[in-house]
Amino acid sequence: MRVISFTCDYSEGAHPLILKRLAETNMSQEAGYGFDSFSENARGLIRAAVGIPEASVFLLCGGTQTNATVIDALLKGYEGVIAAETGHIAVHESGAIEFGGHKVLTLPSHNGKIDPDELREYLEHYYADDAHEHMVWPGMVYLSLPTEYGTLYSEKELQRIREISLEYKLKLFIDGARLGYALASDSCDITLPRLAQLCDAFYIGGTKVGALCGEAVVFPKEAPEHFFSTVKQHGALMAKGRLPGIQFETLFTDGLYFSISRNAILRAMELKKLFGDRGIPFYIDSPTNQQFPILSKAEMEALEGKVLYEIWERLPDGRCVTRFATSWATTPEDIEELAGLLDRCLP
Amino acid sequence: MRVISFTCDYSEGAHPLILKRLAETNMSQEAGYGFDSFSENARGLIRAAVGIPEASVFLLCGGTQTNATVIDALLKGYEGVIAAETGHIAVHESGAIEFGGHKVLTLPSHNGKIDPDELREYLEHYYADDAHEHMVWPGMVYLSLPTEYGTLYSEKELQRIREISLEYKLKLFIDGARLGYALASDSCDITLPRLAQLCDAFYIGGTKVGALCGEAVVFPKEAPEHFFSTVKQHGALMAKGRLPGIQFETLFTDGLYFSISRNAILRAMELKKLFGDRGIPFYIDSPTNQQFPILSKAEMEALEGKVLYEIWERLPDGRCVTRFATSWATTPEDIEELAGLLDRCLP
Amino acid sequence: MRVISFTCDYSEGAHPLILKRLAETNMSQEAGYGFDSFSENARGLIRAAVGIPEASVFLLCGGTQTNATVIDALLKGYEGVIAAETGHIAVHESGAIEFGGHKVLTLPSHNGKIDPDELREYLEHYYADDAHEHMVWPGMVYLSLPTEYGTLYSEKELQRIREISLEYKLKLFIDGARLGYALASDSCDITLPRLAQLCDAFYIGGTKVGALCGEAVVFPKEAPEHFFSTVKQHGALMAKGRLPGIQFETLFTDGLYFSISRNAILRAMELKKLFGDRGIPFYIDSPTNQQFPILSKAEMEALEGKVLYEIWERLPDGRCVTRFATSWATTPEDIEELAGLLDRCLP
Amino acid sequence: MRVISFTCDYSEGAHPLILKRLAETNMSQEAGYGFDSFSENARGLIRAAVGIPEASVFLLCGGTQTNATVIDALLKGYEGVIAAETGHIAVHESGAIEFGGHKVLTLPSHNGKIDPDELREYLEHYYADDAHEHMVWPGMVYLSLPTEYGTLYSEKELQRIREISLEYKLKLFIDGARLGYALASDSCDITLPRLAQLCDAFYIGGTKVGALCGEAVVFPKEAPEHFFSTVKQHGALMAKGRLPGIQFETLFTDGLYFSISRNAILRAMELKKLFGDRGIPFYIDSPTNQQFPILSKAEMEALEGKVLYEIWERLPDGRCVTRFATSWATTPEDIEELAGLLDRCLP
Repeated sequence: MRVISFTCDYSEGAHPLILKRLAETNMSQEAGYGFDSFSENARGLIRAAVGIPEASVFLLCGGTQTNATVIDALLKGYEGVIAAETGHIAVHESGAIEFGGHKVLTLPSHNGKIDPDELREYLEHYYADDAHEHMVWPGMVYLSLPTEYGTLYSEKELQRIREISLEYKLKLFIDGARLGYALASDSCDITLPRLAQLCDAFYIGGTKVGALCGEAVVFPKEAPEHFFSTVKQHGALMAKGRLPGIQFETLFTDGLYFSISRNAILRAMELKKLFGDRGIPFYIDSPTNQQFPILSKAEMEALEGKVLYEIWERLPDGRCVTRFATSWATTPEDIEELAGLLDRCLP
Repeated sequence: MRVISFTCDYSEGAHPLILKRLAETNMSQEAGYGFDSFSENARGLIRAAVGIPEASVFLLCGGTQTNATVIDALLKGYEGVIAAETGHIAVHESGAIEFGGHKVLTLPSHNGKIDPDELREYLEHYYADDAHEHMVWPGMVYLSLPTEYGTLYSEKELQRIREISLEYKLKLFIDGARLGYALASDSCDITLPRLAQLCDAFYIGGTKVGALCGEAVVFPKEAPEHFFSTVKQHGALMAKGRLPGIQFETLFTDGLYFSISRNAILRAMELKKLFGDRGIPFYIDSPTNQQFPILSKAEMEALEGKVLYEIWERLPDGRCVTRFATSWATTPEDIEELAGLLDRCLP
Repeated sequence: MRVISFTCDYSEGAHPLILKRLAETNMSQEAGYGFDSFSENARGLIRAAVGIPEASVFLLCGGTQTNATVIDALLKGYEGVIAAETGHIAVHESGAIEFGGHKVLTLPSHNGKIDPDELREYLEHYYADDAHEHMVWPGMVYLSLPTEYGTLYSEKELQRIREISLEYKLKLFIDGARLGYALASDSCDITLPRLAQLCDAFYIGGTKVGALCGEAVVFPKEAPEHFFSTVKQHGALMAKGRLPGIQFETLFTDGLYFSISRNAILRAMELKKLFGDRGIPFYIDSPTNQQFPILSKAEMEALEGKVLYEIWERLPDGRCVTRFATSWATTPEDIEELAGLLDRCLP
Repeated sequence: MRVISFTCDYSEGAHPLILKRLAETNMSQEAGYGFDSFSENARGLIRAAVGIPEASVFLLCGGTQTNATVIDALLKGYEGVIAAETGHIAVHESGAIEFGGHKVLTLPSHNGKIDPDELREYLEHYYADDAHEHMVWPGMVYLSLPTEYGTLYSEKELQRIREISLEYKLKLFIDGARLGYALASDSCDITLPRLAQLCDAFYIGGTKVGALCGEAVVFPKEAPEHFFSTVKQHGALMAKGRLPGIQFETLFTDGLYFSISRNAILRAMELKKLFGDRGIPFYIDSPTNQQFPILSKAEMEALEGKVLYEIWERLPDGRCVTRFATSWATTPEDIEELAGLLDRCLP
């Protein structure tokens, strides 16, 4: 019997339509470095989805790479980037931002989010400090949507952060590695076009939403000068640009990106109910595809070898915060199987 | 009628067996970051092909990224890397090596190659200079095989460079973005296992030899400490490690990498004969998949819109050095078509 | 009437003996870059004071420069440096450490100090995390002695931190920008030779202890390979090495460094008593040359234009933490004058 | 008997007036980081000498540091700096520019100078290359005046380079580590104010022209935004800004900088005549304080232990290009002594 995995949202390969499209187009001869017809088409589809005809779109390969490249391109040498202390760039990128010479300036995390008031306070404090020219200048706010904890910023929160960032001349950059899973959530009150209006750069994650690889960076207004060369300099330029091109073309045809994201949300809500119905508490009330049930030692032992998930944090009382992630690939059958498993195995 | 392209060796998608394998394995749930079963298998197959059971193998995404990551991992902060002035890292990587803090120290190019005597002379001169501690310490020799001009180092040349590099405590790193096309050439007197014995690191290029993306880095002896983290720091770690994993597993099963490389060489030799038979001179006598015929203005106009190739260099007399590249995907029919075209069109 | 300043410990020029020595030696022709006879002599005197004949000593110009150079030389590319969140490298160096590619990993500050238990906890937590290879490897502990808050680590605390650093293979680096003022304090239970035994690198600050500029870096065991070149690469190599050379030669002749440091401590204790006797509270009970009286708005207004000091932090209740620093140059008359001032002016 | 040294122009300490001024001002309490009254005054004097009241002036410590800081501040991340292959930044700064992430793009050296025509050719070639976005963008021209070979650009050459730099949107930065010795030369047809009109940044070297340390960076139009913080980030901000402040104040009072520079030139011309009169050839016809006589083995043996100079280059025929440098400190007696020495010792 197979061991079902909810470890992460990049366990499978690609959505079958992507593979089909890769096969169909395989022998067409295309220019490299994003000058292929598929990438051109993908960029157009993304501009349309974003609702900004003059937006600049670049297709990169992975998330850390994209964060490091965009942040380095938008910041001046003496500037740093503000992020939640739990932000991906602050914790899980092996220092890729610092490798590019920039400090990550951290604010407290509230279930993965920064608080607009604390952001303002930080900035006021910074500029009030007589020695602030000896400190790293805040040049950008980095948010992830959804956050690393599956949580969402409301449109109102984003608006407030945007106002503050404009007031203090900070760029606003949104890490959308799982953006589809934010937009598809019932709790999300913001649309893709609205999001694009509120920031200087963001990316639409492909790797975690049905692609083999690929992140689509969008600069709603204008791209940093010669961003192409910066991408190359960061080792982030794909010779076969057709690979992300075909994938994003497929994902943004007939709303595939949105429908498969919605699947992940539906499955996540079912999964959430499964645990909730059995009295298992959650670390965070997440409205997206990552769910964080708290399991006791006995419960984990009972599930061992039958279902895979991630240990997120070990609590002092011996219980563990776990992470169960659904994805574009999770089926109703997977959830049913999990339900049966919980019924059979839990103490 | 289609316009046949010899622009580069990354015009098509992937070898069909790779696409087939991607489809077959698509829904299997795998661990990320290279811990999947396909990557594990691919690493084993590569170790076997290299003939060094204890070699370390890492699967990265693209060439510039791989050069920057490996070079940074092997050099100390105050060291630079010696390369031919035509080397990819010296010219065409948008300063990726310098972005990592290291200077590229250039030697004259002899059809893309460095000369062992000139290397030794450079090193003797460096250490004889009283002020050498004010200069960048040479810490590595970078070669490409084949070179950017399609040429090959002989085993004897590589041995001499290796001896010099050992004598002067330099790492030796070989960029094998097109390694298959070197090994498959009739003029190549070195094998993959022998190559591995002669250097500290090299990579087996996938992107230009039938894969959608992917370069397999091999450290014959030992990998730099915590190289995994350096890969992540450079934004070069693929979340879906299965993507390069499946591709290299396929390429190193039943000698596919070598047979498709051989195809490119056979087609290149046919192409070379086509031009030679028609009295068209070559810039370089290349034994690999890149050929550099010199075309007159009239010849280029006659071919315009009928075949694609790259302009390599404009000569003072108005003629152009061009590059025609074959690949794993070039068919005998492509060559025949080119032959007919030359017959019909050339003045 | 002059306005006396306690703003910092680098308000004046140099100790008169240094100026005298600069004048005496001025026209002697010397080799550059630290190869002059004065630097050679200074290094020998420092090795003797440190009690380690084989120690390596380098004379650099300023503090931030020294921190950035030493940290970069001792860390591997993927490593970061642990510091108190109030540490100079974490806050007041405009991101110099990140400019060199390294993350500053912060621990809570306890009056400027890190807690050995929290250090151990951090390291245990780091290595227990399954994803720690995606995070920045801790490669060094940075301490300042005295800290930015004037406080001291006890020998026992340093020993514990040393044990932890050895256990986890971390370098231990001590920022001694004000080292003289630590060693001269009655509360200091560690000697210079003992300090040298407990760390991998430290520096003896000159700029804040009587020199015009200059910090003497000591590597008790061995210097990082080719550290001279790293110093040059960081722009930290002085052409006229005689400048720091003559200064440190003077400071380490007849114990001048220690006697002038002691002067600062004696004056600081007198200053501390002045405020204490008048019922003015302190933010921190500092045993060194920096004192942090908390002044009310009325008190600050009363002193305005009569004495200079630094505003350290504005408290919510309207009072301010201030910093009064004594130095090698502070005289008993300065303290008396301050006493008179407090008597005349305070409400 | 003393061994006279012509090894370099930084063998002695400082001009006596500087030492005098350091002593006179020693106990005045001043603000740090360049906010002292002496630095303020020095900046005003330099602005006056430069003839641009709105110029920005910053006082840094040393040459390599200044080059690295200014270049990094003026370039974008994807840009490199064009220099002669013999330029100080290209050869003798241990890779400080690359440490900051920027490539040095080299042009041939003509006695230390770049040729305006070759500069234009380089730029035309760069922009004509289809792949130029994969290469490092030229963002600046770096010149040294005088060059490392003691030679001078004429005003006409500088104007042409300026025109080209404006046409191609390159910054023009002039390394003036020995600027005084250029301006004081009879062959120099440019003034300090004219120089300032022709570039985006330059510096007035102090270390080699009578100061203990210090280089005065001038931005004739506007300084890079928050340059103060960039200086700090590069470890180039002196806590006791009074040290360079007092020195440049002294050097720019009563034309001292120019008169002591003139002394070096007069002595150099006498020295040049000494060698010329004795039939000793020169490597370069240098009009500044560095002279490059070519000495035979016998001549060098005859002088051994009696006069110090630098070996610049060993010629294949066994002779050596040597460098004899005069400075602000060289006296007519030194030259007379050398004359006697040559008469007594030369074969």
